[in-house]
Amino acid sequence: MTTLLTEMGQRARAAARQLARAKTEQKDKTLLALADALLAEQDMILAANAQDVETGQAAGLTPALIDRLTLNPKRLSGIASDLRSVAALPDPVGETYDATTLPNGLKIHRQRVPLGVLGVIYESRPNVTIDVAGLALKTGNASILRGGKETIRSNQSLVGVVRRVLAGCGLPADAVQFIESPDRTLMAELLTLDEYVDMIIPRGGAALHKFCREHSRIPVMTGGIGICHLFVDETADLSAAVSIIQNSKVQRPSVCNALDTALVHRSIAAQFLPRVVERLAADGVTFRADASAQPFVPVDGQRVLPAGPNDFDTEWLSLVLGLKVVNSVDEAMDHIAAHSTSHSDGILTRNQAHADRFISEVDSSAVLVNASTRFNDGGQLGLGAEVAVSTQRLHARGPMGLRELTTYKWVVIGEGHVRPA
Amino acid sequence: MTTLLTEMGQRARAAARQLARAKTEQKDKTLLALADALLAEQDMILAANAQDVETGQAAGLTPALIDRLTLNPKRLSGIASDLRSVAALPDPVGETYDATTLPNGLKIHRQRVPLGVLGVIYESRPNVTIDVAGLALKTGNASILRGGKETIRSNQSLVGVVRRVLAGCGLPADAVQFIESPDRTLMAELLTLDEYVDMIIPRGGAALHKFCREHSRIPVMTGGIGICHLFVDETADLSAAVSIIQNSKVQRPSVCNALDTALVHRSIAAQFLPRVVERLAADGVTFRADASAQPFVPVDGQRVLPAGPNDFDTEWLSLVLGLKVVNSVDEAMDHIAAHSTSHSDGILTRNQAHADRFISEVDSSAVLVNASTRFNDGGQLGLGAEVAVSTQRLHARGPMGLRELTTYKWVVIGEGHVRPA
Repeated sequence: MTTLLTEMGQRARAAARQLARAKTEQKDKTLLALADALLAEQDMILAANAQDVETGQAAGLTPALIDRLTLNPKRLSGIASDLRSVAALPDPVGETYDATTLPNGLKIHRQRVPLGVLGVIYESRPNVTIDVAGLALKTGNASILRGGKETIRSNQSLVGVVRRVLAGCGLPADAVQFIESPDRTLMAELLTLDEYVDMIIPRGGAALHKFCREHSRIPVMTGGIGICHLFVDETADLSAAVSIIQNSKVQRPSVCNALDTALVHRSIAAQFLPRVVERLAADGVTFRADASAQPFVPVDGQRVLPAGPNDFDTEWLSLVLGLKVVNSVDEAMDHIAAHSTSHSDGILTRNQAHADRFISEVDSSAVLVNASTRFNDGGQLGLGAEVAVSTQRLHARGPMGLRELTTYKWVVIGEGHVRPA
Repeated sequence: MTTLLTEMGQRARAAARQLARAKTEQKDKTLLALADALLAEQDMILAANAQDVETGQAAGLTPALIDRLTLNPKRLSGIASDLRSVAALPDPVGETYDATTLPNGLKIHRQRVPLGVLGVIYESRPNVTIDVAGLALKTGNASILRGGKETIRSNQSLVGVVRRVLAGCGLPADAVQFIESPDRTLMAELLTLDEYVDMIIPRGGAALHKFCREHSRIPVMTGGIGICHLFVDETADLSAAVSIIQNSKVQRPSVCNALDTALVHRSIAAQFLPRVVERLAADGVTFRADASAQPFVPVDGQRVLPAGPNDFDTEWLSLVLGLKVVNSVDEAMDHIAAHSTSHSDGILTRNQAHADRFISEVDSSAVLVNASTRFNDGGQLGLGAEVAVSTQRLHARGPMGLRELTTYKWVVIGEGHVRPA
């Protein structure tokens, strides 16, 4: 272990202790001050970002990647506005629950406290820097950030603003620290810093999540990989179903809660599948139909292609949709159990028994009934903010909002109570 | 990875899917049948255990270790009775919470579901086998158990009973599997089985916890290491305080929630410390007093010894108590922040402001006010059962009962809802 990482860990731990005691008012004032400072220091931030963009273009990054790392006044103002929204949310720290008085008179409850120190590893988008710093601050957590090398100057500039604002508001600057070196061994070291870091949040592709899971001694909140399904049963409102499938697929195809496979009951396939293809093709969607679906939507080599052997295990992240015909709700659930990443799966039905079975038997972070998969999102589910979407099972599943960045302690209040033999 | 472990993982995953759908009634009937079977098959179990005891004695195990691994009719009947208690507890699986209707009309809630597959690694006590199998079954989780080599025959016999009962009650026998070989490489392989195992629960000493944390790709619930403190402030009811310290130290000195250090405010030290020494010495306790405490309880080389440099960082697990005098609640909290393992720490006081500061600022899995540290226990806090005591921060802190062996999914019910742009 290098001295650098150990010292960052120690400073983060000390800052976390201070932050845990900060009052909601002080944290919220700091968030608002940070929003103001981002706008006040916009020129400096955009200049740093322009250097990253220039370096990226010279290195031949794709236009999509360049777009992801680019900041402009509008995006910066969006980031500032998100900080103000976070400031306005209720503070989970200090909330008490499960309060009870035991038969022996002991008064007990659980009380939410910060997790401690978050290690966040992300890729190109510099907005994540402020996003995570803001959510961590609101929940009284210190953070150690490790961004992508393409945005190093933007991140240095943004973290500089954050640390000045923290200090100016009477909070420890070390509550937010940034690993400046792109050296990957430092990232690996962060994952072994279990004495000082309580949770690792990777925000990036499947390879990053896998790397973290394999190398971390610290619990990793993996997620963000969604092979998502909707099953349209024989009782579904077909007009609504087409709209839900369209929304789930095309509203934002590049994200993890976008639809990947539509499963359709055989008895409505002839009626329904051509409508789906017709409607979504207009949005530029192409289809991968397996043998069960091809009789209803023939392969035309353009809009409809035959499904390949791995197509139902592919997260498309683009305007491609798998199509399959099934004979029953059981067959639909079997397909989902075999192919889903347990992110977002749903049923479109007017049969309550089918809906109930789906809710009870499909084990995904969100199970949806007659609604778009795109609703599995912190903002949409009323969490107000989201630091990640977890597809692992411990601590938090699905969208992780503010509460999911806290843990709890037990408080036990007696009047001289001792435990009997 | 050996085929053995991979196949166990696959079978556990398949069993977990079935178990997740089992009704509460079926699970409870199975628990009661298991309790009956343990008594009905007592002769076989005790014969297997007697072989383990004989092997252990021949290998020169200490009497304390031999006692830990020994079963007898009374202990077996205690184990059966614990299973009946677990059957009588409410089933957390299926519980819904955070139900709300969003402004757009979407109905959402969270619903508790089993974690999936538990990997449990433990040492000598064979009662853990049934204890864990019972708690896992109640919460719909499959389990893969890896016990100590000293109890291999007892565990084979117990797991055999469990699997026959499961099958007899219509549940998959593979819901409980046991790694029979004492080969440590199999234990290491279990820790990398992240595709099939959702949580690792080590039950044993600090070395086992460390090994798991360092080698596991699966989240590990570490815990069970307690350096525990009580601070007696200048307003405390001193008679009650002596009793609470006595109970915390001597009621069961070998466990993790037993007291290790008493911190005493200077203004009552002259009055209070001699009373503590007098009362607890009668129970056989010896003391480690640092320089701050020695003026009040002089080192006599018998009952009171000088505290060595590491004594305040030692979990005694025996009849030894550290003594230190402090000048303020802040100094007490600083000492706790520096030396506690965040397991169980408390204050004895009649000053509400001091109690409130302690509750808000001491970050331990349980913070106690005017109560024995021995209350940080699943049974004592009303959880009804306890699978482990967590001192890490994710998912669960302190005693882990049934609810802590579950996770949740989001359920989202719409009426054709699509997400607006």
